[in-house]
Amino acid sequence: MSGYSFYERAFRAFNQYPSLSKLLVVFTVSGGGVAAYSGAQPSGGAVCADSSSVRGICEKKKKVVVLGTGWAGVSFLKTLNNPSYDVHVVSPHNYFAFTPLLPSVTCGNVEARSIVEPIRSITKKKNVDVQFREAVCFKIDAGNKKVYCRSSQDTNLGGKEEFGIDYDYLIVAMGAKSNTFNTPGVEENAHFLKGVEDALKIRQSVIDCFERASLPSVSEEEKKRILHFVVVGGGPTGVEFAAELHDFVIEDLSNLYPAVKDNAKITLLEAGDHILNMFDKRITTFAEEKFQRDGINVKTGSMVIKVADKEISTKVRGSGQVENLPYGMVVWSAGIGPRPEVVDFMKQIGQTNRRALATDEWLRVEGCDDIYALGDCATINQRRVMEDIALIFSKADKNKSGTLNIKDFQEVVDDICERYPQVELYLKKKQMKNIVDLLKDSKDQSVEVDIETFKSALSEVDSQMKNLPATAQVAAQQGAYLANCFNRMEECEKYPEGPLRFRTVGRHRFRPFSYKHLGQFAPLGGEQAAAQLPGDWVSIGHSTQWLWYSVYASKLVSWRTRVLVVSDWGRRFIFGRDSSRI
Amino acid sequence: MSGYSFYERAFRAFNQYPSLSKLLVVFTVSGGGVAAYSGAQPSGGAVCADSSSVRGICEKKKKVVVLGTGWAGVSFLKTLNNPSYDVHVVSPHNYFAFTPLLPSVTCGNVEARSIVEPIRSITKKKNVDVQFREAVCFKIDAGNKKVYCRSSQDTNLGGKEEFGIDYDYLIVAMGAKSNTFNTPGVEENAHFLKGVEDALKIRQSVIDCFERASLPSVSEEEKKRILHFVVVGGGPTGVEFAAELHDFVIEDLSNLYPAVKDNAKITLLEAGDHILNMFDKRITTFAEEKFQRDGINVKTGSMVIKVADKEISTKVRGSGQVENLPYGMVVWSAGIGPRPEVVDFMKQIGQTNRRALATDEWLRVEGCDDIYALGDCATINQRRVMEDIALIFSKADKNKSGTLNIKDFQEVVDDICERYPQVELYLKKKQMKNIVDLLKDSKDQSVEVDIETFKSALSEVDSQMKNLPATAQVAAQQGAYLANCFNRMEECEKYPEGPLRFRTVGRHRFRPFSYKHLGQFAPLGGEQAAAQLPGDWVSIGHSTQWLWYSVYASKLVSWRTRVLVVSDWGRRFIFGRDSSRI
Repeated sequence: MSGYSFYERAFRAFNQYPSLSKLLVVFTVSGGGVAAYSGAQPSGGAVCADSSSVRGICEKKKKVVVLGTGWAGVSFLKTLNNPSYDVHVVSPHNYFAFTPLLPSVTCGNVEARSIVEPIRSITKKKNVDVQFREAVCFKIDAGNKKVYCRSSQDTNLGGKEEFGIDYDYLIVAMGAKSNTFNTPGVEENAHFLKGVEDALKIRQSVIDCFERASLPSVSEEEKKRILHFVVVGGGPTGVEFAAELHDFVIEDLSNLYPAVKDNAKITLLEAGDHILNMFDKRITTFAEEKFQRDGINVKTGSMVIKVADKEISTKVRGSGQVENLPYGMVVWSAGIGPRPEVVDFMKQIGQTNRRALATDEWLRVEGCDDIYALGDCATINQRRVMEDIALIFSKADKNKSGTLNIKDFQEVVDDICERYPQVELYLKKKQMKNIVDLLKDSKDQSVEVDIETFKSALSEVDSQMKNLPATAQVAAQQGAYLANCFNRMEECEKYPEGPLRFRTVGRHRFRPFSYKHLGQFAPLGGEQAAAQLPGDWVSIGHSTQWLWYSVYASKLVSWRTRVLVVSDWGRRFIFGRDSSRI
Repeated sequence: MSGYSFYERAFRAFNQYPSLSKLLVVFTVSGGGVAAYSGAQPSGGAVCADSSSVRGICEKKKKVVVLGTGWAGVSFLKTLNNPSYDVHVVSPHNYFAFTPLLPSVTCGNVEARSIVEPIRSITKKKNVDVQFREAVCFKIDAGNKKVYCRSSQDTNLGGKEEFGIDYDYLIVAMGAKSNTFNTPGVEENAHFLKGVEDALKIRQSVIDCFERASLPSVSEEEKKRILHFVVVGGGPTGVEFAAELHDFVIEDLSNLYPAVKDNAKITLLEAGDHILNMFDKRITTFAEEKFQRDGINVKTGSMVIKVADKEISTKVRGSGQVENLPYGMVVWSAGIGPRPEVVDFMKQIGQTNRRALATDEWLRVEGCDDIYALGDCATINQRRVMEDIALIFSKADKNKSGTLNIKDFQEVVDDICERYPQVELYLKKKQMKNIVDLLKDSKDQSVEVDIETFKSALSEVDSQMKNLPATAQVAAQQGAYLANCFNRMEECEKYPEGPLRFRTVGRHRFRPFSYKHLGQFAPLGGEQAAAQLPGDWVSIGHSTQWLWYSVYASKLVSWRTRVLVVSDWGRRFIFGRDSSRI
């Protein structure tokens, strides 16, 4: 149905304006299919737009409130197709932004508007009743099942509108904010790169620096300071931004600002030993060498301790030596922390001193029925095998013999692996085929283990537990997973499909969330990229950049954004990046 | 040379990245020619980038300072091709904006970035040495031939940088600002539509209104207020904006905001009797009828007397009745006035109580040698025939006989018509062929006139003097005219090509500026437009809209903007306008 709007509009346009056929527009988009125009109406299921007014039909609809329209929230909305919910979405942004392209927006490789899609456009094609409210949720009242929201606008349209929304199910997908680690001056002086507005501000600031440095009254030393761009954080975002900025300066700004181009300098500060440290060693080394060739100054082991007005102070790890670098612009991309609204909610439910909302493996917030949390604002608190080891043993030991044999095992092995995914990770690490291998020394089928042997065999399994990374990929998979649960809520209530409940009786309604890593890209500038794909397959170079283009074009949220991003890339190839200060 | 960058870049790109040939981009642009790629360097004339450092070669270069990068300034820069000038451009914007498309930007028909071109891109292809400074000129010191400028940035890059620039010639092309006629509350509460930033703010505000009206706590009455859009001024800009907004609401926002769409209302306030009153009566009538059919509320004879926070007050002309209209957003497009910097300069040179800088017919500011003013910040003070009538007579009366005969006349008639263009306008109005017809009753060649007859024959001629309209067309022609004068300054000093100097001796160096009106468009929405072309030819309807598309596409400043605007139009046809609030 994603192609509906495109073909329907084109069809209408050609009918209404025969003269339109004079204009032939040819779009070539890689990676997309073609949907034939059927002339059918896009949806018919949503019969009651306002549930309060049509009591008879709608009063049974469960009210789902979604907070946030990032990857997790939008993925949930896109996947939800059960018309028995009345969905209310609250977010300060009325659009979804394709955040992996934000670094491209900072330097005009791609336009901001090409990577956003209005939430209302995304939801209007659905058979589910969705109401969007542009507001910030400032309080969650879990006791009364209500959220309190406030208009995020600061206009002369009226005061700060406040309103409450009741919910049956609440989905918290509010994302995270940049983490300053309480470093003094960061909030006031540094740029962040979390949202579209941030990217646009960075773009203006880069031009501001070049224009300022071009004024006749600016001294040579001051020029050097103004054109010193500092990026804090050697993660994928920081590295990509540094690379984009370098290309922008070399390919476009050098031609337009010949008098000051030699003063431009980029420094990348990383507290760890290497940049891109979550990637394979080969990628890290390649990136560091490429940046060195490009003249990007990579300083590893540098902790930022203060960002003053015109100077950034770093402390060298080890020696403890403090260095002050005069700068013109700082971009802070050093990690994420919880948003204040989420911190408030965590306090309310007793989850203090945490970096994100803890959920169970079904994404339900611990201690809160009917509240789910996903994306960057949540972490899954994976249950340890050791906590349940006695219960697992007794559940498996059907005949209560005190020992388990192979047959006993085989009946519960799938449930164990599903409920405790760390078991499977451990086996994979040890290159074992299944859990039975863990318990026996030989291929002998007659193995019998008692509880102590069982405990010691599984004792190291929990060491494999890892938090999921805070990426778009995880958030999107969680959103889709949760929507699928909601889609089949009634069905699964009757016929549970999850693993055995070891602590109580019966089965879990749903399978727990399980993340499938599809790989990760790190664009390095100069039409080169690195990619780490599943199975530790590493790809680096120009061809990887083309892979990056194809993957990103195909992953974009709508046909409109796909066409726009691809044409932006084409425009940049031909005309370069625009340096107008708007 | 305008196609240079396009082909040169494409050529380089194909050489550097053979894999690029995989991507086939087909652009079809109407109205543009094709320049073959020659491989030649774009320029070679600019030998000294910094005139102070290479004294030997450059000290003879005359320093031209251009204030402003609107139509007049950029047209001057584009036409100037004499490398003997050292040009310094000062403007708070580092880009040129194609302002006739601003109303299209307000509703997302065209993106802001598609209608701007960096000044540095425009000037770098030239053989003239051009330095650009992003700053505001806050003082012109005509006595010392110096301008004082201040950085327009408000960033943490440093304090407000100030600097002075000496000049040999100063070109004031700073444009105008919106005129509030001192109406209370306009500055604080209304939007203007003069620059790209204004258009972007309006676009955000329209979405803000729709989002705010969609909040559940907003009453029905408040919804009506918030979605009441008021446009003040029935000139081409106001009318085009109202039409664009109507299309945006009907074609896009109605689908996305079904719950509030019926509350949306557009009111167009005009103090005069008709909207578009500078156009032919047929166009005015068509526009008024179309707006009535569209449901746009046109209120003529309505003077705005106050714009409060949420209410706009109007007084009906004639009855004097005051009406208060609750509104959500006001766009003020009621005329232009001088900028404060220009007002200061006018005071300095004794031109007080004027709406613009007065220049002579050669665009030179009255009373200031070497300062020129053009575009919206200037008006040409056309000299009256009656002021010079005795001198004209005596110049024509070569033999000092006290009377003029036909032969005497024929020698000066071209000079008179060139120096006093109102003569020609008067003749045209009276349907006479030339000035001789004005003096005689019959075709008799023996006519002889004395000074009194001469005076009375020409007495009504000055009534034909009119100020030029404050349009892009006038500004662009003035810029090109002045650049041509500068290009041939030395040559014309030796061989003056202007008309006779009636008050002194010899000839003027240049022909005076003469405006050629090429017609004017008024887009009316719904893919319809009106056009008034030279010779009072009027065209209205869908075909005129296509004419508008072709003319505007061909008039755009660069190949880049041309491609972008045309693809924006295509995008809007297919996908509609984006309603993301960024």
